[in-house]
Amino acid sequence: MKLYVSSHAPNPRRVTMFIAEKGITGIENVTIDILAGEQHSESFVAKNPLARVPALELDDGRVLCETRAICSYLEGLYPEPNLMGEGFEERAFIEMADRRAELHLFAQIANSARHTHPALAALEKPQFPDFGASQGEKVREGARWLDGALANHPYVAGHRFTIADITAFCALEFARGLLKFKPGAEGFNNLQEWRDRIAARPSVGRP
Amino acid sequence: MKLYVSSHAPNPRRVTMFIAEKGITGIENVTIDILAGEQHSESFVAKNPLARVPALELDDGRVLCETRAICSYLEGLYPEPNLMGEGFEERAFIEMADRRAELHLFAQIANSARHTHPALAALEKPQFPDFGASQGEKVREGARWLDGALANHPYVAGHRFTIADITAFCALEFARGLLKFKPGAEGFNNLQEWRDRIAARPSVGRP
Repeated sequence: MKLYVSSHAPNPRRVTMFIAEKGITGIENVTIDILAGEQHSESFVAKNPLARVPALELDDGRVLCETRAICSYLEGLYPEPNLMGEGFEERAFIEMADRRAELHLFAQIANSARHTHPALAALEKPQFPDFGASQGEKVREGARWLDGALANHPYVAGHRFTIADITAFCALEFARGLLKFKPGAEGFNNLQEWRDRIAARPSVGRP
Repeated sequence: MKLYVSSHAPNPRRVTMFIAEKGITGIENVTIDILAGEQHSESFVAKNPLARVPALELDDGRVLCETRAICSYLEGLYPEPNLMGEGFEERAFIEMADRRAELHLFAQIANSARHTHPALAALEKPQFPDFGASQGEKVREGARWLDGALANHPYVAGHRFTIADITAFCALEFARGLLKFKPGAEGFNNLQEWRDRIAARPSVGRP
């Protein structure tokens, strides 16, 4: 299998961190330079008509796209350690936590960065800086929710590490790099403690 | 079980259509008036701290939120007819199609409506009309992708009706109501034919 990724982009990082947590080896990483527009090349669009990374090319030539769908596939192929739930009930509750991290934290961070950061002007045309700036408050709203949740349990979805931790961690790493957002500096101390705990995992790799 | 919904909102509709396709009976619907702000009431926030519908209250008192997570749970409880895939490989490919419908069509429609429609000013504070207007082209981009995909197979995820059809249909219904968006009028004839075919399903109920 080949995994199409991009340096510094948060969604490919979710998949590579998921792979590292599973200890999966043998998937070849192919880097697409999205700031240079390589995702719009004829050869890549033939793999993903929506011109986005990550994308997983299977050995039979089919291409599976969308971050969480790729993780679902890999979870099926490599069930251990379980990161997405055992049985449908736990799977549903972990999916809830993962979607909350994605829709109420990751999306706002991405909107904020894409509409305000000069380095992302090539990806978001046109940028709407006022809209982007307004997302800063929404990032804090999402962080406030997660900070409160982490007062009750040590991981995003509950008592153990799951895909929801990967989603929230990669979102915060993106916010740290582009928005200079640090949970502790905003008073979100549970979130900062959790972030530092996740950052120490071997799957995180180099910063 | 109790399902918290809201009239006219597209996400609760995804769940009620999913339930209708399954033929599940016995779930009590409780309407939350989101334009009047009922989702921010103390009693509802105790159920969902993120103050959003849909939310599914289980008989043991736990509350499962997030549209697709609720569907995953119901798919596990009521496996037939299968709407989310048999086995991990089909599940992953249907999840890909569902996420594409959500992230590349539904989200743009929601952004466009929330930032431009006077009726939604209570939900989106502040609105950014220029940003909202720019999402119109992104809606067309998503529609163009789906129109092309439907040239190759009769349903969003492939050869059979799945949750991805529900997501895309509820997105287009929202766009029809608030943005007056009609695929056929934009030249997306495959999408219009598919939309009309889905609209004839009994699960759609009254318009």
